[in-house]
This record gives sequence, structure tokens and C-alpha cells, in this order.
Amino acid sequence: MSTSLATDLHSLRAAIDMLWLVVAGALVFFMQAGFAFLEAGMARSKNTVNVIMKNYCDMCFGAVAYWMLGYGLMFGLNETGWLGTTAFGLHAVPESQYGMLFFQMMFAATSATIVSGAIAERTRFSAYIIGSVIITGLIYPVFGAWAWGSVYGGEGWLKKLGFVDFAGSTVVHSIGGWAALAALMVVGPRLGRFGPDGQPRQILGHNLTLVALGSFILWIGWFGFNAGSTLAANVSLGKIALNTHLGGAAGALGAMAMLTVLRQKVLLTATLNGSIAGLVGVTAGCHVMEPAYALLTGAVAGGLSVLAAKVLESRRIDDVVGAVSVHVVGGVWGTLAAGLFDASDMFNPARVGVQALGCIVACIWGFGASLLMYWLIDMVVPLRASTLDEQRGLDFTEHYEQGYPEFQHDAIHRGKHAPV
Amino acid sequence: MSTSLATDLHSLRAAIDMLWLVVAGALVFFMQAGFAFLEAGMARSKNTVNVIMKNYCDMCFGAVAYWMLGYGLMFGLNETGWLGTTAFGLHAVPESQYGMLFFQMMFAATSATIVSGAIAERTRFSAYIIGSVIITGLIYPVFGAWAWGSVYGGEGWLKKLGFVDFAGSTVVHSIGGWAALAALMVVGPRLGRFGPDGQPRQILGHNLTLVALGSFILWIGWFGFNAGSTLAANVSLGKIALNTHLGGAAGALGAMAMLTVLRQKVLLTATLNGSIAGLVGVTAGCHVMEPAYALLTGAVAGGLSVLAAKVLESRRIDDVVGAVSVHVVGGVWGTLAAGLFDASDMFNPARVGVQALGCIVACIWGFGASLLMYWLIDMVVPLRASTLDEQRGLDFTEHYEQGYPEFQHDAIHRGKHAPV
Amino acid sequence: MSTSLATDLHSLRAAIDMLWLVVAGALVFFMQAGFAFLEAGMARSKNTVNVIMKNYCDMCFGAVAYWMLGYGLMFGLNETGWLGTTAFGLHAVPESQYGMLFFQMMFAATSATIVSGAIAERTRFSAYIIGSVIITGLIYPVFGAWAWGSVYGGEGWLKKLGFVDFAGSTVVHSIGGWAALAALMVVGPRLGRFGPDGQPRQILGHNLTLVALGSFILWIGWFGFNAGSTLAANVSLGKIALNTHLGGAAGALGAMAMLTVLRQKVLLTATLNGSIAGLVGVTAGCHVMEPAYALLTGAVAGGLSVLAAKVLESRRIDDVVGAVSVHVVGGVWGTLAAGLFDASDMFNPARVGVQALGCIVACIWGFGASLLMYWLIDMVVPLRASTLDEQRGLDFTEHYEQGYPEFQHDAIHRGKHAPV
Repeated sequence: MSTSLATDLHSLRAAIDMLWLVVAGALVFFMQAGFAFLEAGMARSKNTVNVIMKNYCDMCFGAVAYWMLGYGLMFGLNETGWLGTTAFGLHAVPESQYGMLFFQMMFAATSATIVSGAIAERTRFSAYIIGSVIITGLIYPVFGAWAWGSVYGGEGWLKKLGFVDFAGSTVVHSIGGWAALAALMVVGPRLGRFGPDGQPRQILGHNLTLVALGSFILWIGWFGFNAGSTLAANVSLGKIALNTHLGGAAGALGAMAMLTVLRQKVLLTATLNGSIAGLVGVTAGCHVMEPAYALLTGAVAGGLSVLAAKVLESRRIDDVVGAVSVHVVGGVWGTLAAGLFDASDMFNPARVGVQALGCIVACIWGFGASLLMYWLIDMVVPLRASTLDEQRGLDFTEHYEQGYPEFQHDAIHRGKHAPV
Repeated sequence: MSTSLATDLHSLRAAIDMLWLVVAGALVFFMQAGFAFLEAGMARSKNTVNVIMKNYCDMCFGAVAYWMLGYGLMFGLNETGWLGTTAFGLHAVPESQYGMLFFQMMFAATSATIVSGAIAERTRFSAYIIGSVIITGLIYPVFGAWAWGSVYGGEGWLKKLGFVDFAGSTVVHSIGGWAALAALMVVGPRLGRFGPDGQPRQILGHNLTLVALGSFILWIGWFGFNAGSTLAANVSLGKIALNTHLGGAAGALGAMAMLTVLRQKVLLTATLNGSIAGLVGVTAGCHVMEPAYALLTGAVAGGLSVLAAKVLESRRIDDVVGAVSVHVVGGVWGTLAAGLFDASDMFNPARVGVQALGCIVACIWGFGASLLMYWLIDMVVPLRASTLDEQRGLDFTEHYEQGYPEFQHDAIHRGKHAPV
Repeated sequence: MSTSLATDLHSLRAAIDMLWLVVAGALVFFMQAGFAFLEAGMARSKNTVNVIMKNYCDMCFGAVAYWMLGYGLMFGLNETGWLGTTAFGLHAVPESQYGMLFFQMMFAATSATIVSGAIAERTRFSAYIIGSVIITGLIYPVFGAWAWGSVYGGEGWLKKLGFVDFAGSTVVHSIGGWAALAALMVVGPRLGRFGPDGQPRQILGHNLTLVALGSFILWIGWFGFNAGSTLAANVSLGKIALNTHLGGAAGALGAMAMLTVLRQKVLLTATLNGSIAGLVGVTAGCHVMEPAYALLTGAVAGGLSVLAAKVLESRRIDDVVGAVSVHVVGGVWGTLAAGLFDASDMFNPARVGVQALGCIVACIWGFGASLLMYWLIDMVVPLRASTLDEQRGLDFTEHYEQGYPEFQHDAIHRGKHAPV
């Protein structure tokens, strides 16, 4: 009887782990909506359809690209520590791995979609989609293989060195953020974002309730993102969820505090971004930190996101949603913090060194490969929309639909947009 | 000791299955919001309140109707194979079935609410609600009894024949879609939707971010819809979730490809509808298909949804959200695909024949009963709002509230709506 | 072997309970978004940013306050029955309680945020936040200690008397509602809400799709709120979810029926509020009621919410979202109903007496302590914004951002707002 009980127990354990992967994966899926609405709200209404189309399509194309290529590169048999070589889509993902593939597919989409918000309002749709597919199918999984591979045997070289990035501060967020920075270099700032003498001019997002909706959705999705990264149901979920929440809350507070210290306006948009930076920050180490350190990690990430946004603006980099300041800066800091604040091994310099190495490698690969890619794409399909298209809005020129047809025409006619 | 362990294990298994029913049911609940916002965004702002009121109320009235009547008809003791005869609300649903009743209640609401979007902007509120209650309490459960019944003993006659519709491509979506087509026949197109010579004129939805929100919410809800249809936690959840996601993604890509082939504009609205058609398509067979076939099923469903929308428009049928092209066409194709692409029994013509029979029966019952019902309702409470009410907008004439009172008056006064 | 099986089984049970706490907690988190959007939509567009900032920040500040102080007061070792004395944030919450702390932190945020909607559009941001932190860290947890404490030993004095409030009709909703009433007394009605002779004038919410979004999100969150209050996965989840859904549905129907009986307009906003009142109503007793009584409880709560809103308006209390009529009235009725309709002990007057006592204590503490607090805050930081700020809108004067910059200026310039 015990043997049969053991079998039943084993099957129950497998069922619960699968249930958790599916629930967490669904929450991570929802983050796509979060990114879409945050970006849509931060853009002008004349680009609403373009923003949503980008975010919806990168997920759809990306699902196929990750299934066919990315998952195998990232999690397939990895004998060298550099690349997976099995488990590509059309054959050879065994059914027992379908839940894992589902969950990881959502992560890949998250990484790719980070670029979208940074280069909103002036990027050609087709060129964007090509880049997004390559990130999902190639750039993201290659780094993933180094840091997280593999489930089919073999171990990524960064992982072997002891690099720890639990749910992807670096693997997902920094890689996405570095790709965003590369795209920003190639595509340049929006028309009118900087004056002739380089001084910045604000271009206002058209709908801050949409931005807040995006932010709330990202936050709830993050519970799946972080706690789901256990890949199994266990009692550590509570700690991870608590640390995730404290990190997000502290991120908002850190951003508000930094703005206050800098004697700047405490804007809703900067506060929301601070909370997302906090969430990015705790992502790497939420499984090993004490709550007090999760709070600290989040607060610092939120504060840094404010500083980083200022630096980028002063460099005339026009990041519409603050993707680089949130995902790169939050991600690098969070990855270091995972080494610094591991409750079982606090402030170990060797650990921090390995974490820093991982961050540097992510920068070289994520930024380098993306820069090369966008440069190549730009030679074939210009990444930048034409000046006329940008002025009229991409909805009109690329998508033939308007976001708010009853309310928008007049706004356009009366010239109420920011100067372009 | 083992005996007590077996008891504990059994109770744990029951707890987990219940947990899964509740989580999945909550996700299916959220689909109501998805339908509401998709429809609201596709309608003009002058009917916003009406759209939301319809979707909110059909869920509230429907919950009571399904509890009192529908659940018993569908899942009660079914000795003849035609109708359940026990488990009606006020008595006799045992407590062990409450989770099942909760989950199925959400499915019933989904089916009924499909009609709402099709006949938006010109339907009298009270007449709509009467129809919705009858679908939830009677039309949907009767077909459900044939295909899915029962949990109290007896088996539906279609199920006995081997008809397979895992999560309801036919049972939920086609039935809802057929009812929508019947309602469309009775209520006729919106004023101005077709010119004097029959040529179609576009009437633009007022808010495409709302449409996208609806679509994202439907998609996340679908993970509960499909994976929840296991009614138990087990390792097949991963396969089902993966197939669901690939089906949705491929649906969007299929629609985009079809639009490109037809040399038409690749609209956001058609892309979103394509993904929903893909989700409808994989619903019947996501538990037995290999992922490659889920992808194929979704892509075909998405492509067909584009073609079907053209055909319906050419027949002067004014389906505001494309409910028929998404839910009927996607549902029929998906039901056939569940027979064609069952991994354990591929391309078996006998299987496909039974699936086709189920689709035909769903058409006869779903369309026939609904047509009769709407015709009867129309004799008592005219289904169609008065011309003046339709022109002024149903918010003003039926609900005494406006969706956006600060922004809307001018739009109305300046005559910026589509010609009516 | 059995011993090891028993250990495995025990660990699986712990994993599942933790999984459920995290999933339910994430759903309760989402309710913050629900409150934010419901309130934002009910306010004028000139206060959109203020509303969202309030709701986002009270959650962020509140998380820290509850972790540092509130959780210990509420669930720490409670030898006297009056207050917990251990488990304060910076030390001493053991890791096994992190899931519980996460879940309870979300509840605390819910209670505090109820005030926000009531006093929208005329409250100074900083004063609001101070009040919110004190509610989360002190006022809410103290009553919580009496009714729900503790998990570290000792029992709250109300709980000892037999007071039953399963998921918080009183503990969360009435306390939040009483605090809202106190704040309303101190802050007074919005400019122009009542005419010189006291007759009420409607001030229209600017976005009813946003209100509906908030309502749908609250509803799905409530499945986590109520079913999560089991704090463990078990078969009662199905009953609780079913009763929750029926309560919400019946609440909407009860409000519609009451409006019809009173020969008033059946407004969307009143219907949505009715459903929320229904959800509040079933919260106390959803674990012990038969579904028919959950339906009755919800319907009465919905009907009462309509009546209560009339009474409050006639008293010249300007509750922007109807927080008091929904959360106090729904909460008190629901708490009584939990005593009346307990399936194992129907209509026991002694039980109802204890329930009534709990409601009275909640009123005295929740209203009294909050009134004192807001009066003290008002002496330091005026709770009421200046007249000029209120007229221009708090977004402009307190937050330096606008919700919809492309669409809003004209509306303001053309004076389309309600008279202020």
C-alpha cells in the first residue's frame, strides 16, 4: 500500500508543480498587457494603436520564435556551457516540459517587449518586429543559456561560476534594457524632444490612468514572475512574494524620496517607475534576502531610477517610458544586491564580484549584440519612421486606425500636441 | 498509519482540485470584463454605459438563472441523454459540487455574453437581458447536457457518440455565436452601417485601448477556461496552457497573413479578433493536440475569422465586434480540428464525422432556438431601440448616464460621429 | 517508509497552503487597482492623477507601516486579548509567517484605501497619506487584534466572545468605512455639491468605463479576499467562491430592484456599487451560509446601499464613491447576516447579539479613533485643500501632471465641469 501511496504522492506533487507553473505563467503573460498600457499612456494619442500593435505582435511572433529556436538554445542540452543544442520546437520538447516551455515563453516575451517602450513614437513597425523576434529567439536565450541553462543536462558557464539571478534582474530585465539602449542609439530621439541647443522639452503622455493600469498589472504579474521562478510549489513562495511586494513599495518610496531630495516635482510617472525599478531590483535575490534587505534593495533601485533618468536625458537619450533607467539600472543594482544581501552569506566580496561579472557580460552581450542587430536591420528596413509619418502619428500612417476617433481629430487640428 | 496517510492524501487531492476550480473560475469570471471592454471600445462613446450595463447585468442575472435552472438541466441526472433532471438551485446541489457549480456558472455567462457585442448600439436593454437570461438558463445548458452531461449519472447523447469538445469551442463559443447570428437577423444593422445601395460604411469604435484591454483580459482568462476544464489539477495543465497560448498567438498571425494576402490593411482590431478566434479554435482539442497542431489550428482560425467577417459584411450583417466570425467560425473549425489532430488518432474520418455532426446540431439548436426566442421576445418587447434613441445613443435614452461627460458633449454637438 | 511519506505529505500540504496564500494575496493586491480606478472614474478628470497617486502611495506607505507595526499589533502574541506585542517588522516575524504577513498586508491596504474614494477631489495629499498610514499601522490592526488575533498565542476579546467575521465585513470593510465617515465629517463636501439651500447637485464622474474596470477588478480580487481567508487550501473554497459570486450578483440585482421600487433611475454607478455592497455583505459569513442565503444577504446589502446613499446625501455628506453606504452598511448587515444565516445554527438570537456587539465596537473604535485622528491631522496639516486648488483641480496644484493632457485643456477652458 505504501508503494502505491508513494506513487500517488509523487503524482500529486507533479500536478501541483504544474498548476503553479501555469498560474504563474498566466500572471507573467498579463505583464504584456502591463507593458502595453504603460507605454500607450506615456505616448501621445496619435501613436496609441502603434504601441498596442507592437506589444501584441511581439508577443505573438515571439511565442513562435521562442518555441522554435529560443527554448532549445536556452534550456536544451548544453555541453559546452555556451548554448543549448536540443529541444527546438518542431520536435523534441517532451510533453513533461510543456509547462516549463509555457512559463519560459512568457519570460522571453517580457524581455523583448522592454525595448518597445523606450523607442516609442518614432520607430517603423516592421523594423521593430524584426528586432523583437531576434531578441526573443536569439539574444535573450543565449544569455539565458549562460546564466540559467539547462534543464536537459550541462550547465551555463556563468551559472557554473556561481552567478545568481533568481528570477531575472539581469537575464530578463537588464538584457531587455541593454537592447533598449542599443535601439535608442540607432533610432535617435523624437522630433522636438530636445531643442536646438540640446535642452530637453517634455512630451506629455496622453493618458496617465492607462500608465497606472499598466503599472498595477505589471506589479500583480510580478508575483508570478518571481514566485513562479521556483518552478515548483514550496513554502519559499511566501518569502518571495513578500519580498517582491516590499521591493515594489520601497521602489516607489525611494523614487519619491530622491525627487524630494533633488527638490524636483514628485510626479506620478516617476513614482510608478520607481516601483517598477524596485520590483526589477528584488527580482534577482528575493529568494535569499531578509525582508528588510528587500526593502532596502527596492528603495535604492527606485532612487537610482530617478537619477538614471536625469543622466540619460542630459545625454540626449529619449527613452519614452524610462525603460533603461528602470530595467538596466534596477537590474544591475538588484543583481549586485542579490550577492550583497544573501542572508546565508552577507556582504561576501567574492560573491559580489561574480555578480558584477554577470552584469558586465550582460552589458557586453545585450548591448553589443543588439547594437549590431539594430544597425543591420536599419540598413535593410530603416528603423526610424519618416519625419512626416512621425509628425502625423504612426497610427495614421502605419496602421490606418485611430485610438480615439471621436475625440482625437480636434486635438490634432487645433495643434494641441507637444511641438514636433 | 498508511490508512490514515491515504485519507490525508485523498483530502489533499480534493483540496487541490478545488483550489484549481476556484482559481480557474476566477479567471473565467474575468473574461466577462474582457468581453465588456472589447465591446465598449468597438462601440461609439454614446453607447458606452449601455454596453457595460449589458455585460454586467447579464452576468448577474445569469448567475441566478444558471444556479436555479441551467446547472440542473446541464449536469443533473440525465437518464435519457437529453436533459438533466436534478440539481436545480433552491435544493439539491450538494456542497461537494459547489466548486463545480461556481466554475460552470462562469462558463454559462461567457456563452450568453457573446451575443451582446454582436448586436451592440441598437438593441433595447430590457429585451437583451431577457434573451440573455434564457440563453444562460436554457439554451446553453440544453446543448451542454448533450455534449458534456452529466456529473450526476447518465450521459449526453452527443458525448455517447464520441463527440469531443474539451473546453467548449462548440458548447460555449459556437452556441453563443449562433445565438448572436439569430439576434443579428432579428435586430438588423445599425442605422447608416450600410448605404442605400448596400455598400458598407465603417462605424469606428471609440476607444481601441479599451478593445486591447478586453482582448488581453480574454486571453489571460482563457488559461482558466481551457486548463480549468480538466476540473482537476494534473500534469496535462502545462500542455493545455501551452497550446492555448500558441493558438492565440497563431490566430493573430493567421489573421495578419490573411489580410496581407487579401491586400487589405492589417488593422489592430482584426489582429485582436484573429487571436481570439485562435483561442476559440484550440479550445476543443487543446488537451490532445501536439503544439504544432495547436499552432496550425489557431492560425487557420485567425485567417478564417478575417474571411468570415468579409462574407458577413457582404451579406449586410452588422456584427459590431465580429462575434460570429470569431466564435462560430473559430468554434466550428476548432471542433473539427479536435477530431483531425488528436495526437493519439490523427486524421480519422469517423472522428471528424462525429465532430461535424456536433457542429451541425449546435447550429440547428443554437441558431434555431435563439431565432425563435428573439422573435418571441421581439413581439413582446421590441428588440430594436427606436430610431431616435439609436441616434441619440442608448446611454442618454436608456441609462441616463454618459460614459465621459466632460469630453463627450462637444463630440456629439459637433457631429463627429459616423453618419447615422 | 510511511514515516518518510508522512513527512513528504506534510511538506506538500505546507507547499499548497503557501501557494494558495500567495495566489489569493496577489488577487487581493489587485483590489488596490480596483479601488483606484473606481475612484478615478467617479471623480472629475482634473483630479485623476491625485486619485491614482493616493491609491498607489497608500499601498506603498501602508506596506511598510503594516510590516513594521500593524502586523505585530494584530497577530503578535496577544495575552490580554487587546493587543499583540510581538512580531514587529524589523525583527521577529519568522520565515514561516512570511506568506501570512504578505496576505494580511494586502488586507490592511484594502481597509485604508476605502477612505480615499469617499473624500476624493478636495483633500490635501499629504494629510491624506498621514491618515492612511495611521489606519494601516494602528487603527485597523487594533480592531483586527480584537476580532482575529492571534497567530502567536492569545485570543482577541471579541473572538473569545464568539464574534464571527470570516473575511472581514467588519474588520476590513466597516472599519475602513467608519474611518471614511469620520474623514467626511472633518473635510466637508466638495464646493458646489450642495446648493445654498442644501439641495444636492450631481457632480459627474469623468469616466464610467474606468469605474466599471474598477468594479470588475474588485470582484475578481474578492475571490482571493474571501476564499483566501481560509488561509489554507481545502474543499470549502468552492462554497466560499460560489457564495461570493452569488452575493455580488445579488447585490447588483438588489440595488436595481430598490431603485425601481423607489421609481428612480437605474444607474450603472448605483448598480456597480450594489454589487460591491453585496460582496461586502457575504464576506463575513460566506464560509457558513447556504448559497440561497448568500444570495439573500447580497441582495439586501445591494438594496440597502441605495437607501443609505440617499440618507447620506440628505444629510449633506458628500461621499464621492459611496464608500460609506457600501462598506459600512454592507459590512454591518453582512456581519449580522453571518450570525443569522449560519447553516449550522440558523436564526440564533444570542449569535446575532454578539455580531451586533462587534458592529457597535467597530463603530465606536473605527469612527471614534479616526475622527480624533483626522481632527489632530487637520490641526497640523489642513485636511482640506484650498478653495483655489480645489477649483483648479488637485492634479494641477498638487501633482504638476494632468491625466489626459491632450484632451483636457479645452474641457477646462470651456467650463464644462460641474459648477464649482
